[in-house]
Amino acid sequence: MQNFMYYVPTKIHFGTDQLGYLSELKESGSKVLLVYGGGSIKRSGLYDAAMKVLVEAGLEIFECAGVEPNPRIQTVRRGVEICKENKIDMVLAIGGGSTIDCAKVIAAGAVYEGNAWDLVINPPLIKAALPIYSVLTLSATGSEMDAFAVISDLTKNEKWGTASDCMKPKMSILDPTLTYTVSKKQTAAGTADMMSHTFENYFNFVEGSEMQAGFAESILRCAVKYGPIALEDPTNYDARASLMWCASFAINGTLNAGCAAAWCVHPMEHELSAFYDITHGEGLAILTPVWMEYILSEKTAPRIAQFGRNVMNVTEKDDMAAAKEAIAALKTFFFETMGLPANLRAVGIVEKDNFEVMAQKAANGCVGSYVPLSKEDIVEIFNRAF
Amino acid sequence: MQNFMYYVPTKIHFGTDQLGYLSELKESGSKVLLVYGGGSIKRSGLYDAAMKVLVEAGLEIFECAGVEPNPRIQTVRRGVEICKENKIDMVLAIGGGSTIDCAKVIAAGAVYEGNAWDLVINPPLIKAALPIYSVLTLSATGSEMDAFAVISDLTKNEKWGTASDCMKPKMSILDPTLTYTVSKKQTAAGTADMMSHTFENYFNFVEGSEMQAGFAESILRCAVKYGPIALEDPTNYDARASLMWCASFAINGTLNAGCAAAWCVHPMEHELSAFYDITHGEGLAILTPVWMEYILSEKTAPRIAQFGRNVMNVTEKDDMAAAKEAIAALKTFFFETMGLPANLRAVGIVEKDNFEVMAQKAANGCVGSYVPLSKEDIVEIFNRAF
Repeated sequence: MQNFMYYVPTKIHFGTDQLGYLSELKESGSKVLLVYGGGSIKRSGLYDAAMKVLVEAGLEIFECAGVEPNPRIQTVRRGVEICKENKIDMVLAIGGGSTIDCAKVIAAGAVYEGNAWDLVINPPLIKAALPIYSVLTLSATGSEMDAFAVISDLTKNEKWGTASDCMKPKMSILDPTLTYTVSKKQTAAGTADMMSHTFENYFNFVEGSEMQAGFAESILRCAVKYGPIALEDPTNYDARASLMWCASFAINGTLNAGCAAAWCVHPMEHELSAFYDITHGEGLAILTPVWMEYILSEKTAPRIAQFGRNVMNVTEKDDMAAAKEAIAALKTFFFETMGLPANLRAVGIVEKDNFEVMAQKAANGCVGSYVPLSKEDIVEIFNRAF
Repeated sequence: MQNFMYYVPTKIHFGTDQLGYLSELKESGSKVLLVYGGGSIKRSGLYDAAMKVLVEAGLEIFECAGVEPNPRIQTVRRGVEICKENKIDMVLAIGGGSTIDCAKVIAAGAVYEGNAWDLVINPPLIKAALPIYSVLTLSATGSEMDAFAVISDLTKNEKWGTASDCMKPKMSILDPTLTYTVSKKQTAAGTADMMSHTFENYFNFVEGSEMQAGFAESILRCAVKYGPIALEDPTNYDARASLMWCASFAINGTLNAGCAAAWCVHPMEHELSAFYDITHGEGLAILTPVWMEYILSEKTAPRIAQFGRNVMNVTEKDDMAAAKEAIAALKTFFFETMGLPANLRAVGIVEKDNFEVMAQKAANGCVGSYVPLSKEDIVEIFNRAF
């Protein structure tokens, strides 16, 4: 096992009827910046319910609405400005991962003198942040319990992940019923997203990390079991609850503690989103099986076979054959059971003109990954995914 | 899944050469109470190495030495007195679970006006505590990352667990090499202890908690794999590291988040230790298989069978038969592979005079457990374990 630091300070209030815990925000001061997306929280009544608790707690609320999927640095800057002008004490995100990611960088930008984009491309510059709270409405990114934020500047086709311990939320409310209205498309994409996070942590060569691998397999089994149930029966509580808690644990630092490797499918997907603004989880679903096939070798077959046997009910004894069955089973799960788009053309990427420049940027982002990938490797993966 | 609150704020520095992180204690002030046991940390050199870092960090160190296995309230009171007299800022435990448990209640007692025993028998009285730090030297209780402390008053045959979020350590250093010198007896008892914690969390009837059950099985598989390796090869790093991290996760709140039931084997064992001062992990090893046999029914067989299939390589398809095989395999593991004592006589309990009074107290402690147990049930379990 590798040396590691483990630190998951986020307090989670999980279950039904947890919104009253928003009164805990009083611990961090009186002025709250409420960050949210396109207004679905108004239509659902969540906005009003949250406001009621916040107002009763005596908090003064400012707003930064309109956070985009693949949140933009321009929105971050708008939020930072509100914080600085009004001496905001804390940031509350109500929404999915994009909203929480945006809120995190707003919170860091609020106590940073320079341009907030610096904090995206140079994470060590993040030395402090306002306290961050969240109410989660989508099971996918795990942003509610981790250090990460992914911010885009689509005017430059840039999408980068940043991270800091001080951007880990202080408290997050996870109410599975808030995801009952999530569409089939987003439920499927979220399931692919949490599975991809799990895979990125699971595929490593570190001896003595069976505990972590077993945790990963448990999350993958739950995603494979409950993803389809959530599609068919969107108000199935156990399905929504399992997906929500699995998504948080897929990326909160538990799965890769002691067995960390650089991620590589995420850097590739970030280029797809940066150039074509596609749904992150759909891009991950398209790339993951192609990547597994591309890196399949005598060296990688045992772990891919282990995934097959412990998650996908593969019974084949030979590792190479079992690994191939596992990849085939994953494709069937993603593209048939979950109805996810199976290739880049299906998400509207109809030309290959940018593959070279995208691959170069992705290759820079995945140095030290499970199997090293060159720019040429990544171009080939994009081509096979086309 | 049940509603739950999840909060694991302890920062963990895990691996070799982590002692330098003791300089982080400066964040909590300048006066440290160092709590330790019988002096093995002096013989091993750990005491000197830690003191060097603390002194270089400019900290003023006070000492409370001589913490017993099954730590006594009398030692807690001695520590509390030192804290109050010297206006101590924080408590640092260097040792195993007993030392850390003792340090926790000292830290709570230091900011409590009354008798520290109140905090043991009435946990809600714990409203605050000095910051708690630990350097772990034994993989077993998980105290380094949880809210619990177990304190005894052997003058009254009393041993009770208490808990508070504010007793969760602020930071713990987990260096597996510090457990290289742990004896076979304590290695085996520690393995049984972490497995018992895992079982107490794993045996529940809560639907929709497959993720947590899978995590538990992963920890159990690691204990079954690495316990024997640590016995045979005490300086095997991956074995010591896996046991250490498994022990922390067995009881840090992850396994029972959303699927909590009252524990019942622990309350029974606490009576054994309270009356006979036996090693906690040995008592748990003796009681656990007897308890499993006692509660085996059509209702409990599926989960016990699942443990057998997913941890002990049981292949039997019928649940009742598989559950019986699982219990037999567990006995073989504890009493043959790990060399743990197989019955109460083997740990020096040679008469049954106290079973009635012990059973009554244990029954009070396990209300709401997986299978409800009356005083009579527990007397019978003690008799079968005799």
